[in-house]
Amino acid sequence: MTSVLHSPLPNSLDSSYWYHSQIDGCIGTTLKIKHTLLCTASPFQKIEVVDTYGLGRVLLLAGTVVFTEKDEHIYNEMIAHPVLVAHPAPRTICIIGGGDGGVLREVLKHPSVEKVTVVEIDSMVTDAINRFFPNLYGGFRDPRTELVFEDGYQWLKDCQRTFDAIIVDSYDPGGPIQSLGTEDFFEVVGSSLTDAGHAVFLTSSPELNRDKIRVTARDLAVIFPFCKPYLATLPSFPLGLCSFLLCGKTPAGAGECDRERMERLTERCRYYCAAIQQGAFLLPRSVADIFNITASNDE
Amino acid sequence: MTSVLHSPLPNSLDSSYWYHSQIDGCIGTTLKIKHTLLCTASPFQKIEVVDTYGLGRVLLLAGTVVFTEKDEHIYNEMIAHPVLVAHPAPRTICIIGGGDGGVLREVLKHPSVEKVTVVEIDSMVTDAINRFFPNLYGGFRDPRTELVFEDGYQWLKDCQRTFDAIIVDSYDPGGPIQSLGTEDFFEVVGSSLTDAGHAVFLTSSPELNRDKIRVTARDLAVIFPFCKPYLATLPSFPLGLCSFLLCGKTPAGAGECDRERMERLTERCRYYCAAIQQGAFLLPRSVADIFNITASNDE
Repeated sequence: MTSVLHSPLPNSLDSSYWYHSQIDGCIGTTLKIKHTLLCTASPFQKIEVVDTYGLGRVLLLAGTVVFTEKDEHIYNEMIAHPVLVAHPAPRTICIIGGGDGGVLREVLKHPSVEKVTVVEIDSMVTDAINRFFPNLYGGFRDPRTELVFEDGYQWLKDCQRTFDAIIVDSYDPGGPIQSLGTEDFFEVVGSSLTDAGHAVFLTSSPELNRDKIRVTARDLAVIFPFCKPYLATLPSFPLGLCSFLLCGKTPAGAGECDRERMERLTERCRYYCAAIQQGAFLLPRSVADIFNITASNDE
Repeated sequence: MTSVLHSPLPNSLDSSYWYHSQIDGCIGTTLKIKHTLLCTASPFQKIEVVDTYGLGRVLLLAGTVVFTEKDEHIYNEMIAHPVLVAHPAPRTICIIGGGDGGVLREVLKHPSVEKVTVVEIDSMVTDAINRFFPNLYGGFRDPRTELVFEDGYQWLKDCQRTFDAIIVDSYDPGGPIQSLGTEDFFEVVGSSLTDAGHAVFLTSSPELNRDKIRVTARDLAVIFPFCKPYLATLPSFPLGLCSFLLCGKTPAGAGECDRERMERLTERCRYYCAAIQQGAFLLPRSVADIFNITASNDE
């Protein structure tokens, strides 16, 4: 889907390097690059860190932008907080993926949290964060954090523990951990939740992944009686829109989050707030159709 | 802010033309072009129509994408319907700009509408629509439509009429009609509304126009006791997000729109629906800050 071209612009006075990603070879995004900070490969994927003029430092895995310093807070706040405020006092959290530390940073903002387990398959991603993104790495030094380098599916299946929230921070259904998109994995997630717990799954850009999303939403509905999609707007994301599915045994909103708890949380966020906690779940008709819910979004 | 480069990709087997727009020379969007259908200039601006691989036909004015066939419905539905459902039965509507016919098409979906006046400064834009966008031109043949080619500010000031809704469909604050961003114009709009009427102003991408939006929001608040911002996600828009300000003498939501009216309207829309009519006004904290409203979005 995406590719990286480093080609100089046709300007002899200001020849620059540009990152160029394309969707289906038809629509592209370009980022002007200051310089490359890291270009290496792990056993799982190519890992690059570049410094850009418009979006700060950027992490690329397998040639795809995973996050930019400019807007990583939007993604990380929006994948973490809705699933945590659905629980009256979440104590134990599991993040599948999340080796970049962004989701971890947000989870640790909830004072009830006692233990967060991050299960990342690729230790070289976390090494790169440690070197180039100090604002993201801090959570790994928190005594509440447990960092495990393993396949998330296998680890969760074997761990014999339950969690108040499970966050599946897998950036790409075609990425290194194919098992994270399977029905087996969804079942393992379901059986690893406490009764009042919820899980959140990244379902990516609704415009680009219609067919994949339909299948994922159908498979998740078999496991979870409650499944609710929501959206966040992300400038650096393909077509600017990112979707998530919040799932659990019981309905979830911000019902378990009192006004004081929400206000304390919002003070520490830049995108997330009480309004967006409600508004993110109110979908345009075209997106509601993909998730096979009625346009009125009635519960 | 934007520029058009038609430069072939460095691929000898598939040399193609690309449209390339840049934000502050740092972040760009590229569109692969099939061919140019129109390249001309009016007394006001350069006018281009190109056929693209990913987004269908695209109208460019002064080198900037005004709309694409793929997502024009999002913009046009979202600028038209919130201001119209704020009125129990809007009869007279004025569209300032709107020579592309998209907003007009949406306005005519409201059965109470008796007369729509479109005030477009550039007749060559409407000519281009007639030739290349049949899906957008239809509204100009409707007997309820009055099409005037004049400066919107001057026309509205002189017309001595009032409207149940005024839609300011001006695509760019730096465009040919500079007068549409002034306090004088806002005053003229205010005095041209019926008592229960509302106006909507395009305030463009919140990330890119922070300072301009702050000034516009402040100036509009002087004229209108009620000012409420809302958002739509537009893949072809810079950074994917478009903001609007709904203004009037009285508060507006969908309060005047009963369930049956909303359902009939939603059936004829692709993006707009009851959920998004509510959700579009629930803003992320960072956007609420730009419009100088509290993060809780309390009214």
